[in-house]
Amino acid sequence: MTAVGIDAIEIWTGKLTLNLPETFAPVKGEDPAKYTKGLGLETSSFPDVYEDIVTMGANAAKRLMDRRGLTPDDIGRIDVATESAFDNSKPVSTYIAGCLEQTYEGDFRHANKGERKFACVAGTQSIDDAYNWIKAGRNRGRAALVIATDTALYARGDPGEATQGAGAVAMLIDEEPSVVELSTEQGYGSMDETDFLKPNQQFPSVDGKRSMQVYLARMREALEDYESVAGRTKVEDFEYIPFHTPFPGMVRKAGLLGYRHMIRDTEKEDELADRIGRQPREADFDSWDDYEEAIRAYMDDLKETDEYREWYGRVIDPTLSLARRVGNWYTGSVHVARTSALKHAYETGKAMTGKQLLVGSYGSGAQAEIHAETVREGWRDEIEALNVDEQLAGRYDLDFEEYEQVHDAHNHEKDVELEEFTQPANEFVFTGWGRMNERKYEYVE
Amino acid sequence: MTAVGIDAIEIWTGKLTLNLPETFAPVKGEDPAKYTKGLGLETSSFPDVYEDIVTMGANAAKRLMDRRGLTPDDIGRIDVATESAFDNSKPVSTYIAGCLEQTYEGDFRHANKGERKFACVAGTQSIDDAYNWIKAGRNRGRAALVIATDTALYARGDPGEATQGAGAVAMLIDEEPSVVELSTEQGYGSMDETDFLKPNQQFPSVDGKRSMQVYLARMREALEDYESVAGRTKVEDFEYIPFHTPFPGMVRKAGLLGYRHMIRDTEKEDELADRIGRQPREADFDSWDDYEEAIRAYMDDLKETDEYREWYGRVIDPTLSLARRVGNWYTGSVHVARTSALKHAYETGKAMTGKQLLVGSYGSGAQAEIHAETVREGWRDEIEALNVDEQLAGRYDLDFEEYEQVHDAHNHEKDVELEEFTQPANEFVFTGWGRMNERKYEYVE
Repeated sequence: MTAVGIDAIEIWTGKLTLNLPETFAPVKGEDPAKYTKGLGLETSSFPDVYEDIVTMGANAAKRLMDRRGLTPDDIGRIDVATESAFDNSKPVSTYIAGCLEQTYEGDFRHANKGERKFACVAGTQSIDDAYNWIKAGRNRGRAALVIATDTALYARGDPGEATQGAGAVAMLIDEEPSVVELSTEQGYGSMDETDFLKPNQQFPSVDGKRSMQVYLARMREALEDYESVAGRTKVEDFEYIPFHTPFPGMVRKAGLLGYRHMIRDTEKEDELADRIGRQPREADFDSWDDYEEAIRAYMDDLKETDEYREWYGRVIDPTLSLARRVGNWYTGSVHVARTSALKHAYETGKAMTGKQLLVGSYGSGAQAEIHAETVREGWRDEIEALNVDEQLAGRYDLDFEEYEQVHDAHNHEKDVELEEFTQPANEFVFTGWGRMNERKYEYVE
Repeated sequence: MTAVGIDAIEIWTGKLTLNLPETFAPVKGEDPAKYTKGLGLETSSFPDVYEDIVTMGANAAKRLMDRRGLTPDDIGRIDVATESAFDNSKPVSTYIAGCLEQTYEGDFRHANKGERKFACVAGTQSIDDAYNWIKAGRNRGRAALVIATDTALYARGDPGEATQGAGAVAMLIDEEPSVVELSTEQGYGSMDETDFLKPNQQFPSVDGKRSMQVYLARMREALEDYESVAGRTKVEDFEYIPFHTPFPGMVRKAGLLGYRHMIRDTEKEDELADRIGRQPREADFDSWDDYEEAIRAYMDDLKETDEYREWYGRVIDPTLSLARRVGNWYTGSVHVARTSALKHAYETGKAMTGKQLLVGSYGSGAQAEIHAETVREGWRDEIEALNVDEQLAGRYDLDFEEYEQVHDAHNHEKDVELEEFTQPANEFVFTGWGRMNERKYEYVE
């Protein structure tokens, strides 16, 4: 069977940045450690006034196409995943294709374009649709372009405000891919939840506490569902485990839960038993509350063991390095985490070809998806070609007043005129609204 | 290779109806024939105050599941296609699953839920995603539920007002399906167009003239693309050709264009040549305008031939019978057209097993998709089980003032208290908003 997976990845960050400990914390009167240690965030990315989900997505896709020498004819499918759409009918993929057609010979006339919505998990769903399309023999030798693009803004003063971010990840899904092959096996944990939603509104309504519980519950169910088809997962199977990262602190909790699950009934559990006991078993408890309490105590001890800390530092922590600098990109987030992991492997000279990743995607509302990926021989060249560090270093550092202005400029309910902070060059920019309220774009040299 | 396609279909109409010639035309001061002959519409369906895209979709899905004796465990995937979503993050499929879980044992905890947006073509895209998922061997013996649900409302006074509609189509996609098998081959015609869109607004901005041109252009490109993989299409190949039906008058134009394309360079063209000449060829004309003019003249003549009229009456007209009574259901529209065709075959005692349909889906923005379907042995039982005629006959007939009230009640920008016109029974209803602005639903006996 032909391998199908991610052949190329490109990242495009919003051009502005907000420093959480230095700019945000002082104005909020908060200890900077609340952000750096608690949430695990240093800075977040913001879109300049001429940027939006279309420009960021189109710019990421153009970098990818240019680098790989692709033309529109090579692409049979363009799916955009976003929860920041500005149109209830016309999909963002048509706008992005329209942008790209300004700069290439030919067009995407025979490509299937679409848009998926399911909070942050929609990017992974789009990758899966592309994978299935190829496996079903319908791609006619063409690849799929999947673009996860979001401006993850919260209302000002919302507890989620510190976790904001903006950026796009473009991925090419193809046969015999260069970066990773996807597993056929997938696991889902999915229930109707009111944890985070945007009913007829741009900024989300969030129940922060519920949202964290739901993330962990759905992720556990997805892992169990994955194991029901792929067999038991073990800590030694996976080189990295990239999770959807609303903020790195959330992933710390998911990592601990995953580790406990994976070592259960293994030699590792026995090794640790001398120091922290064996894991509580539900059958040994009279009440659910007592069991939960025992689990919490076990987890507190587990977290402090050298074994867990070594594993977390090696397998989870490297997936968070970009998230710490860009915030939450919603649909792009788990794909940023995968990129962080591979970038870490590249920078530390790790041999990755043939190694496995376990990838945990998540969307509020709520659904988790877990699948495995096998790293392919071309991964190193692909990661080497990224210029994300350069992009991040080049962001304009907003002061708080500027942050407020740019937040207002992106608020659909406000009509704000604001000068751009950075000078666009060789990229797509938003130029204004047309007569039918359509958004218009141009490529600037 | 296992056949994959549509195993079951259910339709749920909005409970109210507006009579266009009798109620709408007099108030607008228009000749009733403008609607009945021009647009080809008699009545349209509207949602009662307790109905919306979730209730209609969930009710269609429940009828389907009950009739087929399905439980949540039989379903591995729920995709909703809509361009009437009321949330920018949480997909409608989670709300519908939440409704269904109120009435079944078990849950959809391990089903992949999603939402697709691309105007009216998104339902077909969701069917394709489900088809590909099964063909890729990822379904674990489970079927997919695809629900196309829309409240296709226009601003009052908009030229599109007469083409409104509201309803849902639920379809089960499975191996060895009872209704139709889908072709592997697909054709796409897709370009970035500003013909119909809803930028941060509930009701569409429409350029009516452009919208018709774009529909026909994309449909032609999709047919050419389909033929590039499936070979030439011929008029005798297809028993029915269901098109996306914004209003039946549009399909008259598409049918004529399709017929001209399919008879080109065939004996049929030669047969007709005595009376109306051969089709104009672009190479024979000095200017594009002259060629276009000649094509128009040929089409005017072609339309009046007995051969074309017989074909249209047999292959196209039967696909429109439900659309005439329900209006445009956006994502559901082409699936209503397929159902109309099979219903016609059932009612006229036609043998359909093994016969072919050519299906033309379309979404503004803009994209057409064309594929073929082979009718399966179980089609007759499935069509017999539909109660759509009963549903349509049972609709409450609105007077104009009531129509204005119910339109306002569904307008997100208005806060209207309105008594329901019909009494819900054995169905899901909208009961109000929760503390996070989520919409809430209940099953009423």
